[in-house]
Amino acid sequence: MREPVNPEEFRQAGHRVIDWIADYRARAADLPVMSRVAPGEVRAQLPAIPPEHGELFDAILADLDRVIVPGLSHWQHPRFFGYFPSNATLASVLGDLVSSGLGVLGLSWQSSPALTELEETVADWMRRMVGLSDAWSGVIQDSASSSTLVALLCARERATDHGQTRGGLQAEPRPLTVYTSVQGHSSVEKDALLAGFGRDNLRAVPTDRDHALDPAALDEAIRQDRRAGKLPCAIVATVGTTATTALDPLLPLADLAREHDMWLHVDAALAGSAMILPDCRWMWEGIEGADSLVLNPHKWLGTVFDCSLYYVRDPQHLIRVMSTNPSYLRSAADDRVQNLRDWGIPLGRRFRALKLWFLIREQGIEGLQARLRRDLANAKWLAGQVDATPDWRRLAPVPLQTVCVRHVPPGLEGEALDTHTLEWAARVNASGAAYLTPALLEGRWMVRVSIGAEPTELRHVQDLWKLMRETAEGH
Amino acid sequence: MREPVNPEEFRQAGHRVIDWIADYRARAADLPVMSRVAPGEVRAQLPAIPPEHGELFDAILADLDRVIVPGLSHWQHPRFFGYFPSNATLASVLGDLVSSGLGVLGLSWQSSPALTELEETVADWMRRMVGLSDAWSGVIQDSASSSTLVALLCARERATDHGQTRGGLQAEPRPLTVYTSVQGHSSVEKDALLAGFGRDNLRAVPTDRDHALDPAALDEAIRQDRRAGKLPCAIVATVGTTATTALDPLLPLADLAREHDMWLHVDAALAGSAMILPDCRWMWEGIEGADSLVLNPHKWLGTVFDCSLYYVRDPQHLIRVMSTNPSYLRSAADDRVQNLRDWGIPLGRRFRALKLWFLIREQGIEGLQARLRRDLANAKWLAGQVDATPDWRRLAPVPLQTVCVRHVPPGLEGEALDTHTLEWAARVNASGAAYLTPALLEGRWMVRVSIGAEPTELRHVQDLWKLMRETAEGH
Repeated sequence: MREPVNPEEFRQAGHRVIDWIADYRARAADLPVMSRVAPGEVRAQLPAIPPEHGELFDAILADLDRVIVPGLSHWQHPRFFGYFPSNATLASVLGDLVSSGLGVLGLSWQSSPALTELEETVADWMRRMVGLSDAWSGVIQDSASSSTLVALLCARERATDHGQTRGGLQAEPRPLTVYTSVQGHSSVEKDALLAGFGRDNLRAVPTDRDHALDPAALDEAIRQDRRAGKLPCAIVATVGTTATTALDPLLPLADLAREHDMWLHVDAALAGSAMILPDCRWMWEGIEGADSLVLNPHKWLGTVFDCSLYYVRDPQHLIRVMSTNPSYLRSAADDRVQNLRDWGIPLGRRFRALKLWFLIREQGIEGLQARLRRDLANAKWLAGQVDATPDWRRLAPVPLQTVCVRHVPPGLEGEALDTHTLEWAARVNASGAAYLTPALLEGRWMVRVSIGAEPTELRHVQDLWKLMRETAEGH
Repeated sequence: MREPVNPEEFRQAGHRVIDWIADYRARAADLPVMSRVAPGEVRAQLPAIPPEHGELFDAILADLDRVIVPGLSHWQHPRFFGYFPSNATLASVLGDLVSSGLGVLGLSWQSSPALTELEETVADWMRRMVGLSDAWSGVIQDSASSSTLVALLCARERATDHGQTRGGLQAEPRPLTVYTSVQGHSSVEKDALLAGFGRDNLRAVPTDRDHALDPAALDEAIRQDRRAGKLPCAIVATVGTTATTALDPLLPLADLAREHDMWLHVDAALAGSAMILPDCRWMWEGIEGADSLVLNPHKWLGTVFDCSLYYVRDPQHLIRVMSTNPSYLRSAADDRVQNLRDWGIPLGRRFRALKLWFLIREQGIEGLQARLRRDLANAKWLAGQVDATPDWRRLAPVPLQTVCVRHVPPGLEGEALDTHTLEWAARVNASGAAYLTPALLEGRWMVRVSIGAEPTELRHVQDLWKLMRETAEGH
């Protein structure tokens, strides 16, 4: 039988893994961006039965090259333009490695005080960096989906005066309703359903011509629900929607939330990172009128997944909704510290602050700002090309790093246009030279070009544009 | 301005971080197990303002030693006997490092096919390793808290025929009720409240003399609720409770669940790992009658946090409760693959299968089994010492790796005994030589000795017992 890896063996194997990652990052640009494996192909190469005896690291590392890498779509590739940037900068990779190496858990402050206090520190650093007032308190969650679920639970409990301590949502006399725009993220609907509101009580509010939530339509929806005996509970506004990076207008939404005593949650999962640039902060003007917000440093900013920052105005309310205090987690310090298990759903908490701490320190604010400025400029460049080229249409404003386009040959419309759009996007992806993700906008397919992978420079966007034109125009 | 770390700089810095972790693990035994910092002490050593300019790795690594390590309670220490084992074996640390280095996300199968297919593979490996039938399908969640929340949401939706697609929980005519034992984990109450059931509809069922759920008491509670017009919805049984590792009897609970058409969820977060030993499987006899179960390879088994395995009998029901299908996540492969975002709450998914894959392959089943056998034997040894020593009481059976004790000097009882218990435990912890966590059992404090940190050998348990005796007996 093999003994577990000891620190000296770890040193050897660890250096090899570090080298393997450095090599992977250096050669990523030469790999096809989107994986070409067929469904089941990866699994078929793996034994169905776990090994009885331990294996050597050589075998495991060899399988990374043989089985795993061909089965990846490469998010850290310079021509990755799909979904959204999820940057795993190498500084943050090392911060996360330290977290794993330490292997400590934040069940309570006492279970590892530095885990809690560094998290408080970096959450406050990020608050300052994005220009939020000191009325906000932050905590790291795993994802925007979870952060928004926590927000809706807090909204539910505020509206019901903590009904969970009595009969729960099932005892509420008036149905609670939740509002987001038709462009709100899929997680808002999912979270509202999981929180028990029911689809009948979720309103998808129409948007204006820039795909931002229309406050007049929201106002009308709220009033209509009130007349029907419902209790309007929460508004989820989005700063930077997934499809087109539309910006819901927070000032009038905050007014409506105040008027109707509703919770205002702001999903700035992607766009929040851009707020480290003061000239971007007009995009979330009115943010101080919200009750909670989420921004994901694990997207564009560059903290390796998962690192979602959830900020609230009233941490005591959050704690009251989320707290448990079993005897085996109590310590003498409890009345002088924060126990962050009471700020989210999981009890167990990884030392996630390290990866954000490493990133901010290694880059500095100016380093992070410079990279975001580069990406904003690259998006502007592409938008300009689209605008200037016959038969290409830009479908939405480009405040951030996503450019939404269609190629519209003369006479093509309706389903034929959809077929053309999906066809040329699929050909771009199949080429291996770039990865794009199509999406529906007002019922018709378009292509989102999401710029901002860490290694993406202007020349990669130029390559992409050339490839898009050649593929769509049939040159 | 500094450029972001490039692969060559990463190679240098990465080797240093690997060495730092190897050194940390090698010297952990010499550090005080429980951190001695006072509340606020770590934070006070960190700048309140983030750095404008990038810093060198030297400065960051120096702060790890200066600020972070003194602020940790060391879970990977050979004399860590607190909470539960959360082993970050070095093989799994390297697997997680690969995940960070690749920086891919599993939003959908297509977004990184190997992420999904390796997760299916290792979930199935673990299923085989713990002796579950092939009627179970597994997925990795972040924690048992989240897994149990997912289970309660699935129970809620089965009982209401997917009421979330209509008026939600607030539209249900009959209050749904949830049952667990008085020894159930704090997350069960928290999850039931978050799922909207309300505290009035959560039943804490009495236990037998071994602190296991009493099926007769549960039967009576269910019948009483039915007579009162409630709809009994879910039973959460625990195999290996947190306080004493009590074993709820699954066979009669599964019978009750079947009789009343209720969901049976099994929390085997800690004990599940032990099921890789065939001679332990009597502990969850009846498991095949459950609807869902959670076991945490990130506890005793050794996968660095977070890696919680959630198994279900009916994945189509899970998917129906959790699924979303926004256009920007669709791909041509969707009808032939699993999109694991529909198996849990977060949309974004890290490549967590790698750390479990590395662990199982590097150790082999026999390596993992040998370590668990060692820990079981060490717990038996301590239980024997306690049983044979005057004035010491063992408070519960020791089927696993936790020994619950009190030192009871002649004449001491009630609050004076509580004071004595908390006092000697605090002195053990303050010594730095070991870390123990007290807990309440039937209203009185006791000390849980949780054995099973990866570096803990028999000699460390012997050292602990000597220290406990000296401290409590006042030698």
